[in-house]
Amino acid sequence: MRLATVRTAGGTRAAKVTGGGYVDLGLPDVGALLAHEDWPELAARADGPALQAGDLAPVVPRPGKILCVGLNYRTHILEMGRELPDHPTLFAKFAEALIGPRDDVQLAPESSAVDWEAELALVIGATVRRASPEEAAAAIAGFTVMNDVTMRDWQFRTKEWLQGKTFEGTTPLGPVLVTPDELPGGVRPALPIRCLVDGEQTQLADTADLVFDPVDLVRYASTIMTLRPGDVIATGTPGGVGHARTPPRYLTDGVTLVTEVEGVGRLENTARTA
Amino acid sequence: MRLATVRTAGGTRAAKVTGGGYVDLGLPDVGALLAHEDWPELAARADGPALQAGDLAPVVPRPGKILCVGLNYRTHILEMGRELPDHPTLFAKFAEALIGPRDDVQLAPESSAVDWEAELALVIGATVRRASPEEAAAAIAGFTVMNDVTMRDWQFRTKEWLQGKTFEGTTPLGPVLVTPDELPGGVRPALPIRCLVDGEQTQLADTADLVFDPVDLVRYASTIMTLRPGDVIATGTPGGVGHARTPPRYLTDGVTLVTEVEGVGRLENTARTA
Repeated sequence: MRLATVRTAGGTRAAKVTGGGYVDLGLPDVGALLAHEDWPELAARADGPALQAGDLAPVVPRPGKILCVGLNYRTHILEMGRELPDHPTLFAKFAEALIGPRDDVQLAPESSAVDWEAELALVIGATVRRASPEEAAAAIAGFTVMNDVTMRDWQFRTKEWLQGKTFEGTTPLGPVLVTPDELPGGVRPALPIRCLVDGEQTQLADTADLVFDPVDLVRYASTIMTLRPGDVIATGTPGGVGHARTPPRYLTDGVTLVTEVEGVGRLENTARTA
Repeated sequence: MRLATVRTAGGTRAAKVTGGGYVDLGLPDVGALLAHEDWPELAARADGPALQAGDLAPVVPRPGKILCVGLNYRTHILEMGRELPDHPTLFAKFAEALIGPRDDVQLAPESSAVDWEAELALVIGATVRRASPEEAAAAIAGFTVMNDVTMRDWQFRTKEWLQGKTFEGTTPLGPVLVTPDELPGGVRPALPIRCLVDGEQTQLADTADLVFDPVDLVRYASTIMTLRPGDVIATGTPGGVGHARTPPRYLTDGVTLVTEVEGVGRLENTARTA
């Protein structure tokens, strides 16, 4: 099943994506849908009116929490000469950062080092704390795509990355949530992930190469606090970011950014000076 | 004016604190009150029924964002032999971490290094982005007290502090929000701040000693993203935390934790093994 949050003249709506278009689920967004314990049945049996879709909002527009993971692609860590980490590196992003899958990435005038980070993201579909592996797997509603666009100059102003990670209107999330049953590998998807900047492929990896897979991450994060429906965990980015190049390369006005996880979806955004 | 979020048999309620008790403001919590643009007038003119208060919830139970600041007391930075920072160090905490001003601090069995950090916190009362100093000052609804209780072992597992900063049920916030007009220094309060652990004073400083004062912090954070009513910024902790002692000292079952900003309020919590 594929779910989306559709923008309509009357506000956003949760929708089931079918061959023919979008079926209205009678709720304002996918976050509100996931808050219903029986959301899988509710969405599966919906055969309501088709939505006249404008475009798509972030698939969960206001997650209660957005957790991001640093350094999580095995091949990239090893090729950098580092050791595999014992624990995931977690940091936060706030909902203000999110944009839809076709919206412009806002280039803030305060930064001159805006970089890309293609990521597979998971969306929580149940309330869990200190989840077992089975509970963690069952709490994954599905997967979507995120580009964890980062202001590198602000990220490295201090030791804590947050301020470079949560600039407003920078982070596309979507286009759809795909349930695990539709993906090879299920809750541990094995899918090509790539990023294209002005048509040039800058990142390419396989999501099976994660050190901490989606189930691991849900378990780990749920040790710290309760995870709730609509929470998002972005699983980290592979090698190939602009900051690591010589010379570094950053997003500038008019540059196109394509972020794709095969079988999950494709974000197509353009960087724009505000 | 002093505002609180009161627990009643029918759920939480926003209240104005008067000499005689709590005046019901007809809204579920202080966050919901601040979402009304005319909240100061709405609260000032309220003379509704008195609430039969049980105890107090976190003064804003579900802030959209909780931003915390590291290394922000001048005297402490200098005595550590460090240079004053050019930019504030920002990190996040999620609402799941919050507890009320008399609730127990939950000691998670996964941590053996739970530490205290007394802090002055500000609460946002208007929507602002890229605020001028005047706009930043006007956007501060008032001040409250927080103890940024921290799992040191988890904080230092990786370079990013988040995972040690947001354990569920660890962080008292309250007891009340005090508007700046009631405080010496106004939006830049000059007040003694202290922490007592089992009656021993472990931290003592003056909130006028902040490197980045509340107005600076609102300006800085609003460069990154829109701040909204109910958002909380904790302004950092002075010297005297348990982790810096030789040997280190941490919170254990039954230890009492008092966190006070004179003229703002006092948190009285007990650490409890879950």
